[in-house]
Amino acid sequence: MPEDLLGVHELCDSNAVHVGILGGTGPAGKGLATRLAATGTTVTIGSRDAERAAAVAAEVVAAWPEHQLPIVGADNAGAAAADVVVVATPWDSAVATVRPLAEALRGKVVISMVNALVKEGREMVALMPARGSMAGAVQAALPGSLVAAAFHHLPAADMIDLASGLQSDVLVCADDPRATEQTLALIEPLEGLRGLDAGSLNQAAAIEAFTAVCITLNIRHRAHSTLRLAGI
Amino acid sequence: MPEDLLGVHELCDSNAVHVGILGGTGPAGKGLATRLAATGTTVTIGSRDAERAAAVAAEVVAAWPEHQLPIVGADNAGAAAADVVVVATPWDSAVATVRPLAEALRGKVVISMVNALVKEGREMVALMPARGSMAGAVQAALPGSLVAAAFHHLPAADMIDLASGLQSDVLVCADDPRATEQTLALIEPLEGLRGLDAGSLNQAAAIEAFTAVCITLNIRHRAHSTLRLAGI
Repeated sequence: MPEDLLGVHELCDSNAVHVGILGGTGPAGKGLATRLAATGTTVTIGSRDAERAAAVAAEVVAAWPEHQLPIVGADNAGAAAADVVVVATPWDSAVATVRPLAEALRGKVVISMVNALVKEGREMVALMPARGSMAGAVQAALPGSLVAAAFHHLPAADMIDLASGLQSDVLVCADDPRATEQTLALIEPLEGLRGLDAGSLNQAAAIEAFTAVCITLNIRHRAHSTLRLAGI
Repeated sequence: MPEDLLGVHELCDSNAVHVGILGGTGPAGKGLATRLAATGTTVTIGSRDAERAAAVAAEVVAAWPEHQLPIVGADNAGAAAADVVVVATPWDSAVATVRPLAEALRGKVVISMVNALVKEGREMVALMPARGSMAGAVQAALPGSLVAAAFHHLPAADMIDLASGLQSDVLVCADDPRATEQTLALIEPLEGLRGLDAGSLNQAAAIEAFTAVCITLNIRHRAHSTLRLAGI
């Protein structure tokens, strides 16, 4: 961990935080961008293809004209220049996406929302990443960054729709408490979402894999379920 | 899978089902025995030590004198003679406990509630069993049985206390639909608990591991949380 982390705590309490989303043109990235921007956070959606990112950003902004959402598109290097960076790529390109950006991401909080899942028949099955979790793989590829895992269990369709009435708990885990704090600070203003500190990055394996269970329940029960923990 | 499974479906609808709990003298086994017996299900708590099992059974019965709970103790072979058998041993003795009982358990539904967990500092960490899940390890040791995984996320203290007001979802997974159905039928009369079909035994890895997250949340937040899925 680098010592030079000035500013991390200041960002927690600042509305001026700028979030970049690597691989943010998919449903998960678009959903998170929409929710963050609706609270005034500036978001850069990143993609290998900057034109595609710009087109997706424009599409999201146009979907909620009354909100004037502060979302722009860029290539992934452009998104990596933000204060806090989210990884929302498909699982099998997460490491390849973040590794060349290691210098840009040094000292920053990087939030992995990546799940390694595969559809098999009437269910989604969790794959076991070689390092136990995708967040662990991202942390290994970015030894100078403070990696958290979060946002895995949120249904993308409900995230994209600001009127969906989504209510869900968001489990956050990280090895460095600054990563947990900064992620919880991003979640705090998001309507209907409650962030919960779920421990160290060791927990990412179970948190990521549980996404397969949530989706399988939805398939089996034709439901739109969300995770809630009672008594906490 | 053996063809000779007459009676499995009948049992689903019968109040006369008898449940055995291997390694049932721990908090998890005692809690499940208490809840099942309170709905009229006869329960045999099993242990390596039949005297200890009998003492624990008597202790549970004495705790709720007005219920006259139908719970007895036996050695694990005695518990394995029941219609449906639950595995509630510590994770590192589950396979050693069930393997010598394979013949007694042939053709029966066997429900694994085993979690492979280890306490590390202020959290519980999920271990990765060699076959991906403890339920998978039990199924591999009992190729003639219909293994389900269930009851992992229930707080034992709230299960043991019939007056706790416990409200929780219970995720059930199995490869054979008869195992899922019979497990859901056991859960159905249990007050405050809702059983949900969560797919094939592949899901057991994520369901078991998520127990570590639930317990870690309780440690971090000094809470007594239970799993609830909204919108389903």
